[in-house]
This record gives sequence, structure tokens and C-alpha cells, in this order.
Amino acid sequence: MTHSIAILGASGYTGAELIRLIAGHATMKITALGANSKAGQTISQVFPHLRHLDLPPLLQIDEIDFANIDLCFCALPHKTSQEVIARLPADLKIVDLSADFRLRDPEAYKKWYGNAHAAVAQQEEAVYGLTEFYRDEIRSARLVAGTGCNAATGQFALRPLITGGLIDLDDIILDLKCAVSGAGRSLKENLLHAELSEGYHAYAIGGTHRHLGEFDQEFSKLAGRPVQVQFTPHLVPANRGILATVYVKGDAEAIHNALESAYSAEPFIEVLPFGEAPSTRHIRGSNFCHIGVTSDRLPGRTIIVAALDNLTKGSSGQALQNANLMLDIEETEGLMMAPLFP
Amino acid sequence: MTHSIAILGASGYTGAELIRLIAGHATMKITALGANSKAGQTISQVFPHLRHLDLPPLLQIDEIDFANIDLCFCALPHKTSQEVIARLPADLKIVDLSADFRLRDPEAYKKWYGNAHAAVAQQEEAVYGLTEFYRDEIRSARLVAGTGCNAATGQFALRPLITGGLIDLDDIILDLKCAVSGAGRSLKENLLHAELSEGYHAYAIGGTHRHLGEFDQEFSKLAGRPVQVQFTPHLVPANRGILATVYVKGDAEAIHNALESAYSAEPFIEVLPFGEAPSTRHIRGSNFCHIGVTSDRLPGRTIIVAALDNLTKGSSGQALQNANLMLDIEETEGLMMAPLFP
Amino acid sequence: MTHSIAILGASGYTGAELIRLIAGHATMKITALGANSKAGQTISQVFPHLRHLDLPPLLQIDEIDFANIDLCFCALPHKTSQEVIARLPADLKIVDLSADFRLRDPEAYKKWYGNAHAAVAQQEEAVYGLTEFYRDEIRSARLVAGTGCNAATGQFALRPLITGGLIDLDDIILDLKCAVSGAGRSLKENLLHAELSEGYHAYAIGGTHRHLGEFDQEFSKLAGRPVQVQFTPHLVPANRGILATVYVKGDAEAIHNALESAYSAEPFIEVLPFGEAPSTRHIRGSNFCHIGVTSDRLPGRTIIVAALDNLTKGSSGQALQNANLMLDIEETEGLMMAPLFP
Amino acid sequence: MTHSIAILGASGYTGAELIRLIAGHATMKITALGANSKAGQTISQVFPHLRHLDLPPLLQIDEIDFANIDLCFCALPHKTSQEVIARLPADLKIVDLSADFRLRDPEAYKKWYGNAHAAVAQQEEAVYGLTEFYRDEIRSARLVAGTGCNAATGQFALRPLITGGLIDLDDIILDLKCAVSGAGRSLKENLLHAELSEGYHAYAIGGTHRHLGEFDQEFSKLAGRPVQVQFTPHLVPANRGILATVYVKGDAEAIHNALESAYSAEPFIEVLPFGEAPSTRHIRGSNFCHIGVTSDRLPGRTIIVAALDNLTKGSSGQALQNANLMLDIEETEGLMMAPLFP
Repeated sequence: MTHSIAILGASGYTGAELIRLIAGHATMKITALGANSKAGQTISQVFPHLRHLDLPPLLQIDEIDFANIDLCFCALPHKTSQEVIARLPADLKIVDLSADFRLRDPEAYKKWYGNAHAAVAQQEEAVYGLTEFYRDEIRSARLVAGTGCNAATGQFALRPLITGGLIDLDDIILDLKCAVSGAGRSLKENLLHAELSEGYHAYAIGGTHRHLGEFDQEFSKLAGRPVQVQFTPHLVPANRGILATVYVKGDAEAIHNALESAYSAEPFIEVLPFGEAPSTRHIRGSNFCHIGVTSDRLPGRTIIVAALDNLTKGSSGQALQNANLMLDIEETEGLMMAPLFP
Repeated sequence: MTHSIAILGASGYTGAELIRLIAGHATMKITALGANSKAGQTISQVFPHLRHLDLPPLLQIDEIDFANIDLCFCALPHKTSQEVIARLPADLKIVDLSADFRLRDPEAYKKWYGNAHAAVAQQEEAVYGLTEFYRDEIRSARLVAGTGCNAATGQFALRPLITGGLIDLDDIILDLKCAVSGAGRSLKENLLHAELSEGYHAYAIGGTHRHLGEFDQEFSKLAGRPVQVQFTPHLVPANRGILATVYVKGDAEAIHNALESAYSAEPFIEVLPFGEAPSTRHIRGSNFCHIGVTSDRLPGRTIIVAALDNLTKGSSGQALQNANLMLDIEETEGLMMAPLFP
Repeated sequence: MTHSIAILGASGYTGAELIRLIAGHATMKITALGANSKAGQTISQVFPHLRHLDLPPLLQIDEIDFANIDLCFCALPHKTSQEVIARLPADLKIVDLSADFRLRDPEAYKKWYGNAHAAVAQQEEAVYGLTEFYRDEIRSARLVAGTGCNAATGQFALRPLITGGLIDLDDIILDLKCAVSGAGRSLKENLLHAELSEGYHAYAIGGTHRHLGEFDQEFSKLAGRPVQVQFTPHLVPANRGILATVYVKGDAEAIHNALESAYSAEPFIEVLPFGEAPSTRHIRGSNFCHIGVTSDRLPGRTIIVAALDNLTKGSSGQALQNANLMLDIEETEGLMMAPLFP
Repeated sequence: MTHSIAILGASGYTGAELIRLIAGHATMKITALGANSKAGQTISQVFPHLRHLDLPPLLQIDEIDFANIDLCFCALPHKTSQEVIARLPADLKIVDLSADFRLRDPEAYKKWYGNAHAAVAQQEEAVYGLTEFYRDEIRSARLVAGTGCNAATGQFALRPLITGGLIDLDDIILDLKCAVSGAGRSLKENLLHAELSEGYHAYAIGGTHRHLGEFDQEFSKLAGRPVQVQFTPHLVPANRGILATVYVKGDAEAIHNALESAYSAEPFIEVLPFGEAPSTRHIRGSNFCHIGVTSDRLPGRTIIVAALDNLTKGSSGQALQNANLMLDIEETEGLMMAPLFP
């Protein structure tokens, strides 16, 4: 059996990553590629690393016939995504990789993104795409909203602890180190090699990063009360990877036990032995998330470190994992490749 | 059907790359891992990026039972490799990734490597592992000698031109740019990040690099007369990749035609449209080799640029491709993954 | 007037950085270079980037005549340093860059470094070399102990806040991102380019890093009570730089005012406008430290980010700054070069 | 005595490099900064690494009063530069860093740059700024044209050999490896960190790079007959540096002798001992050029490798060196800083 797949936004990094993954998928076949600004080009021109694949040309989204598409990935910029999805066939299965359908509350959406939502009906039906925690809803969803890559990393470290009542909810600090592909293929001065290489810095300090909308929504829902974390992302000179260093108040062994127990049956979440810590270089290019727990010398304080690849587990890999569920395919299909090291 | 595989030298980069590739292979199963200096450790300790795999522990080579092994990869340092292989069962199928069995002539071996060969019988039976040009011999070989990664890159660019009589054999220059993993996981000052990052240099200038032994052997054999190329490798601050810029005297279009024709049926060699040039970033982590041809402003001069990943097509991917042939498996099995970009 | 300078440990990175800086100093002249394992070599062999300088050859330390040396920099490994300094002339002015004389309390030294101190008399007389806070003592000192590079970064961010009573002393988190040259020129697998490039990780998590000895000593002394911070260093793929992200409980504007006021007359400490944050790329190769302050969305929480170059302000630049004071030279001499960007 | 300096194009990398160098100059003082698109900003906003300097604000070029300017550096894009310089005071000393005044022949200019020259009078009076070979003309020039960075590197390797009649003029190959800052601070997809890091490629292959105009002009003039070299630049993942690997037919020892003799009195050109080769990491951030010579195993063939920092010796350092000559200042003033390593 073959599943016919469309990808909108194929000329960005998450689009390319979807193509890379689906190229190794047993039953999915890409039958339509949309990329407005680069429509008319071939994938070889836009992404020469994919030149060996037999792929359809890039089209304007309006030119695509969705009649025989089994599932559509939307890897478009936010705001654009909601406008496009509002016009897609109402019965088309969609996995959206943008930020547009992550927040349930239209007010929260407006607060973090600055504009009124243009597809409120779809926002309502969308399921939050953190696979390990929304598996059943995703299986039966029509529209799944891929999570933020930072938001995914932090939630893997924290959700079982909040559920388990193991940490002080008013004193959670996430210090994230993010690779540059998370910023996409956009032409900004601070993303140039000469600007970024050999240096690193914090940005969106103090609670202004939009992924906080997701943390607030999910952690508060889990806790049954408002939870607001501190979150500082840093841009480091690497292409792939997110490393979250999470500072909490709670017992380290209990925390380690809770994480081990929560993820023992998960194919992609690896909890390291107590006291070990992950590195982004050990998950690069893969769908795995590694999590380590260490106790601090100060009693009652614990450091959790989680690492994943922002383009894979943090976005396109997660999207494919969700698509597998939605199409009733084995969840791990196309996603078990080992990381690329060195 | 399952093929039982042993890897000797599993704690080096080519060993790790073999494990990565075989993890995605349909019929191969790793049943023994040898790594003398790190024997007793698990693969998770030596290569945390492989921790999700179910693999046997690292053993001393002497501890391994080869009785049920279908094929053994030797990813050991040169000199060590010949000593080990001399003692392995005489009917064991072996793909060697070291330099030990590449040269047919014991005198040439001694000239380039400085010592008398310790396994002359095996040297005699070994088949040179450049798959695209020795496919039939490899299929029936017991012992295949993986090529040098630089030697493979240069030969992909040049062999069809020598065979076709298209270039001046006395004026061939190969200027290679090599990533650092080609130097292995050895503790040398010049391989430290602080020494290598943000800078680059030429080494083994003037005809002293050992891969010249392979170029001399293969090109002279092809031409039916002695051929000696100029070859300058450069170390650049990247982890994977070889880019060969080859300067020849010959007609560019004829050269492009010859390469296109030679590789039209090859699954892993992509000849780019005339005038285009490859980049190492577009083959990283894959078994593909991209080749481009451009004419110079000076009539009768042509520049050929070839790019491949030294750890994959330049070594472990080539080894697996050969192993597939030796075990009568589809040649491309486990090797069709797309490159990792960005 | 010329000051005659010796450098012991000239073949390491801090030694090379001292030579680089002193090459641009108006009155200092290097008359002796010691480097035991590389004695007999020239500096061109050990550090080709210094080949244009007219420098003495590398000697065994025992071969050096200290009679006419005005000041000696010791850039030796810890433990070695204390043994060497115990045998140097008792009236020789010394700036030590190792960890050996940073801790005042022999018990604390033993706790963090594992061995009894071998030069207790010198330990007693040593002055802690954080120039901006020990200027007067340094001016009249014979032996100055350079600070840890992480310890310097954290103290620049925190000392005025502790002195001013502006933050909760029991809830201070320092999350540091460190470049690899801080680990020195040592041959370790995890410092190889292929291991480090394109990835990053936390290490010494939970309160085991030795620079905590300095934090504990200095912050407790300032506060007049025990203060223990949380401190997690991370290794990022860059050669120079430390970025400290410091999470405190205290009022952001008061904190910004306190830092501005503390450093308003300091030539090397730049407090950025409120809400701005530094980057390591903007201090690379210089003696500057940039500090930014941002308030969190959670009331009463503040993030301070400090950046400096570990080899310059974090070690060799600090050492030269202290040497200038000890020799009654203008404090900024040889240290005002602008950072190298890009 | 103080020299009043203007810099036009201060918001680009060569502008920033000029500021960095002049900040350490004994007699020059920057009194005007022009940067049209970023006019109105301070240098701290455009280049935070220069925030410690006391500099004038960025102005529109039209707003600058050139009455008291002793020398003006033009670090503008080509084409813009000729238009601006045509309107500047006719007696203003100018060092231009663009490509606009490098070629003497208006036809050659048009051939390589595609447009008719807009300042033919100034083109006529301009002196080619390769200091070591045009020192006397530069001293008395009003307008000096900085050379291309690639063109400078190749000429340092080759000029003495052409003058000395030591090599075959019809068989010269320059294979250059260039760092990314040579492409400037422009927003192009292929200059993004995610596109460039971890990969490398050749570009402008086959004789289309504009610096060939300079090679043709200078080498033909030296030889007294047309000389056309082959030249292939490659972009490597580093920020600063050019490494030229030059393949010639000629005797290696005679070549080494000629280079040593040509540069024995030069403060910035270091010819390495025979058989040694330079690295870009050993000249980074400095005005030095390192040159090495090695003989090939093929008799009569020689490889010359030259390394310099494209932003310093290849452009802004060269410009300052020329400005020193034009203002009758010691040629090396402000330029003797040691390279930054690691």
C-alpha cells in the first residue's frame, strides 16, 4: 500500500528534512511539492543534496491537486500557514509544522503572535502534536499542530515531573542552547556564517520567546493551576540541536525514576543512567531525545539535561511520527535511523 | 534470511559508521564487535549516539567466535589489520577498511608504508574494493581491500578519462580538501578543535601521501604505461567530506560525456549538468558521489570537481556496498539514505 | 625603560596568549621562555603564528637564569605550578595562571584539588588576581594568583549585587557556555575537532567543577556568610569565549544600576544598556567583559549575562593587567586592542 | 601629530576591520564615518565589538565635511565606490578598498565588471595598491586602489618567479581556499551558517572570477607578454583566511631562493623554511603573509602555498599600510599585532 503525500513549504529546512525522512519510508510517496517563492524550480536546484531522488517539481500551492493526497505536511511560515490551511479541503489530513495551531486559546495566540487568528475553526479542531503525550488524540485527528522545537525539548524534561508533583512549580528555569537551523533559511544578518560562527549569545531573554505560550498552556493544564517557567534560549554555532538545561527544586532520584518510568516504553526517548548527561552530537540527524538527571551539591536541587535535533524530533521527525499515527502506519516507520556522528 | 556480521575495530570512526549503516540494513545483524583497547566496554560508552541499538559488547578480537560469522569487517589501523587478518579463518569473508591490502605489489607496499608486508598470501588474493570498477571480482572475492578515501575520490573523477584516452596523462593535478574525520579518532595535537577550527592548510605536499600508491597502481594499469599524478591534500575545518578539484588537459565536453556515460547506470555516482559543481555539504552522511565538469577559459583545459563523504562512500559505505555484493544481497541495500543537510 | 619578562609554560595556550599580548606592550620584553616537554624547540615550531617575533628559545625551567627577570608569568598546569614556584627566587615577582594559589584555605584547596598543597607559604602570601576588586593588594603583591576563567566571569556579574545586598543569596544559578581553549592544549578524545564540532553538552554538573571553590570563597567573604551557587558549565564548539547566564532573584533595575555604578570607571568592563545582552563574538581576542541585564516576566527575577574571552580577560589578559600593576606600569598597557570580528 | 581619518562604508567587514586597526594606530584618529544604509546609527549598534571606542556616529556620505580630513578610506561596494569617489574633493587622499580602480585599462574593467567605468579620470590616476611592489608610487599617490584579496595572495606567491623567469608562464594553476568574510556582510542564502558550515565547494570555476583581471594585468606587465593563469576559488567554513596552493613548473629550490630574496626585507611577508607550509590559522587577524615552497616528486614541478587574512593583509591591513606611506608615517604603524590563535 502506498500513501500519497504532499509537502507545502518544501524549500525550507523542515521541508527538506521531511523529504529526507520520507525518502526512507516504506509506504509514503511524495506526489506534490509546494513552495511559492521557488515554484517552477526542481528540488535539485533548491536542495542539491536531494538530487538523487525522483520528486515532482515545486509548484505554487494553488496549482496542487489535493484530490488523491492522503496527508499533507505544511512546513510554511506561521501566519502563512493558517491562511493556506483555511483554504485546503476540509477532509484533508494535515500535519502543520508552523506555530499557528499550537495554542488552544485564541487570546493566548494573539498575545504571543500579535495578530488575530485567521483560521479559528481549524485552531479549534487541531491536536497538539507532542506525540508521546497526545498519541490517542493524534491517531484520530484531522489536523495536528507540530510543537515548537524548544517547547518539545522542555516538555520532555518536565512533563512527568509536573504530573508526578515532584518539583516546585514556581521555580523552574530552562536554559536552552539552540543550533541555527531552528531559525530557518531566512536571510538575516545574524544568521550569516561570519556573524554566528565562533560566537554565541542569549536572545529573547526574560520571557519574550513565543514558545513560552506552549509551556504556559501545557504545564498549566498538567498542573491544574497556572505555571510559568523562566526560559532563556541561546544561539550556538552549530547547525542542528537543542540542549535544554533545566534547573528544578525536587529530589533527583525521584525525578530520574519518574522519567525512566514515563519513557520506558517510548522508542525515541532515552533516559540516561543517573548522573550522565547527553550531548547534541549524539542525537544529530535522528529522532531520538536523550535525557540525563544529576543532583546538585545543594540538597533538593536537580539539573535535568535534554537533547534532541530541532529539525528531526523537534519538528519534521515529530511530524512524520504523527503522520504515521494518523495513517495507521507503524509509528516508528522511517524514523529509526541512527544519529550521524561525527 | 539474516547475515551474521562481525566488526573488528568498532571503536573508531569507520567502525561507528559501519554500525550506523548496518542498523538500517534489511538482513545484516551485528553479532560480534571487536575493539582491543576498549574491550569490555559497551557501545554506549564508546559511542553514545548508538545507545539505542541492541548490540553485543566490545570484545578482544581473540575472544570472538567466527564460526557463524557470514562476513567480517576489519576497521583496524593499518599494520594491525594485516596481522589480524593473517590469523582469521581462511574461509571467512572479509572486507578490510585499512590500507593493508590495497597495493598488489609487495614492493610498492613497502615503499609507501615502510615495512615488509606480514600477510603476503592474503595480499595476493585481495581484490581492490572500488566497487564501480571491480564489481565482478568483488562478487566472488573472499577478501576485499577498501580503497583510500582520497584515492576513491580521485579515481571517480579520472578513471573514465584515462580509459577513454581523453586527457594528457603527464599533467594531472589533484588538489583535495579533506575533512578531519579522515584522520581517525587519534589523539594528535593538530586534530584538536582549538588547533583545527577556523583554519586550514595543505599537508603531505609534493607526492608523499600514501594514497599516491593507489593512484599510481590503478592509473598505470588503466593506461598501460606509468602514470604519476600530482596530489596535494588539505585539511579543512569540517568533520566529513572530501572535495577533489582535478586539473587536466583535455576537452571539457568530451570529458563530461565520458563521465556521464560511465556512470549513467550507477546508483551512487551523480554527474552534474555541465558547468555545475558539487559541494561536500550535499553528500554528507550519504553514499553518493557528485561530480561536476567545467571548461577553463584556457582552451583545452578542464576542471573536474568530485565530492563524497570520506566515512561513507570513501570507506564504510563502500565497504557495505562490497559486502552486499559478496553476500549476494542487493548492492544498494542499507545505503540509499539521503544526505544530512543542513 | 624595559621590563624583563619570563614565561614558564610557553607552549600552552595561555603561554601563547601572553606572548601575543606582550608583543604589543610598550615596555615589556620577553627574555626567557620555559616549556619543559618542548624545551629545545623554537617558538616558531611550537606556535607558528608567532614566528615573526624575535624570541628566546624554549628552555627547561631549570636552565633559566632569573637574576635579571623583573616578573615571571607561570602558565603551567596546576600541581606543577606550586612545585615550580616553591623553588623560584623568593623575591621574584610572579603572576601565576594556574589554579594553585587561588584558594586561601589549605583545606578548601585539598577538598577541590584532591592533594595537600606543596607550597603553603606561597599560598599564604598570594593575592587573588581579580584585578577590578583586588587592585591595591595586587599593586604591592609579590605573587598574584590568576583567577579561574569561569570564576572571573561569574564574579563580574555577581560581586556588586552581593555587596549591595540586592539578590537572594540562596538562589543563584550560573549556567556557563565555555569555548574549548579553556581546556588547554591537552590530548583528550573529547577535545578533538571531530568530537566537539557541531555539538555541545554540559559537564561537571551538580557542583563538582573546581571553580566553585573560588565562588564559595569569594562570595562568602563578600556576604559575610556562606554562599553556595549552582554552576553548570557547557562546552560549545568555539575556540574562545565564556558566556555566563546568571539567574537571580532581585530587582532588575537595581541590579543594572549597581553594575553600572560598580564598573563606570573600569576600562575593561562594559555594562550594556538595560535589556541588551552580550555575545562572545564581540569580545573575542580582547580584554573586555560585556555585561547585560534583563528583567524576567516573573516579577523579582533577573537574568544577567556576562561575556569575556577565556584566554584574554579570563586568563592571560588578566595576568598582564596584574603584572602592569605590580610593575607600576599603566594598567591598560598592551591590553586595549579591539576584539577580532568576524 | 594627529591624522584625521574618514571611513566610508563603515558598516561592512572591511570598514570594521579598518576601525579595529586604526584604534591601535599611534597618530590616526577617526573623525568621520559614512554608511548610507545604516546612517543615523552608532557604531555600537552596527558592530557591538567596537563599543568601547569613542567614535563619531554613522553619517550619510553627503553629510560628511571632508575639509579637515587627511585621508579617506572607501570601503564601499564596487560601482558605488567609483560614483562616490568621482564626487569627493579632488585633492583628498583616498585609499579605495573596492574593485573599482584596480584595472588600468577601461576595456578590461568593462570586460570583467560589465559596465563602463564612471570615473575614468580617477581610474587613470589610481595606483595599484600591492604595497610591496608599488611602494614608491603609493607614497606619492593621491588615490590608491586596494587589490583583490585573492589577487594579493596569488601575486605574493608568483611575482618574483615571473620577474625571475623561473617558471613556465603557460602552466600556472592557483587553487584558492577562501574564508567567508571575503564575501562581505551581504544577505545571501549561501552565506548563511546553516548553508556554509560543515561543507565546502568550488565556485567561479574555469576563469570567470573577477580577480583574474588583476592577475592578467599584473602578470602580463611583469612578463612583458600575455600571461593567463588558471584560478579556482573555493569557499571553506571559516571566517578569515585565504590559502593559495599554486602549481608551477620550475625548480623548487630556485623558486624558494627567489622568494626568500624578494621578501627578505619585508616586514609582513614570511617565507618559511624549504618544505614547510603555512596555515591560515597562523596569520588570522594579522597583516602577515606566510609562504611555503615544496618540490613535487615529479621533477621540475613545484608547489607554493601562500596564506594571509583576507580582511587584514588582503584588504584593510593593506589599505592601512598604504595610507601610512601616503601620510609619511612608518609603514608598519598599527599593523604589527600578532595573529590570534587559537
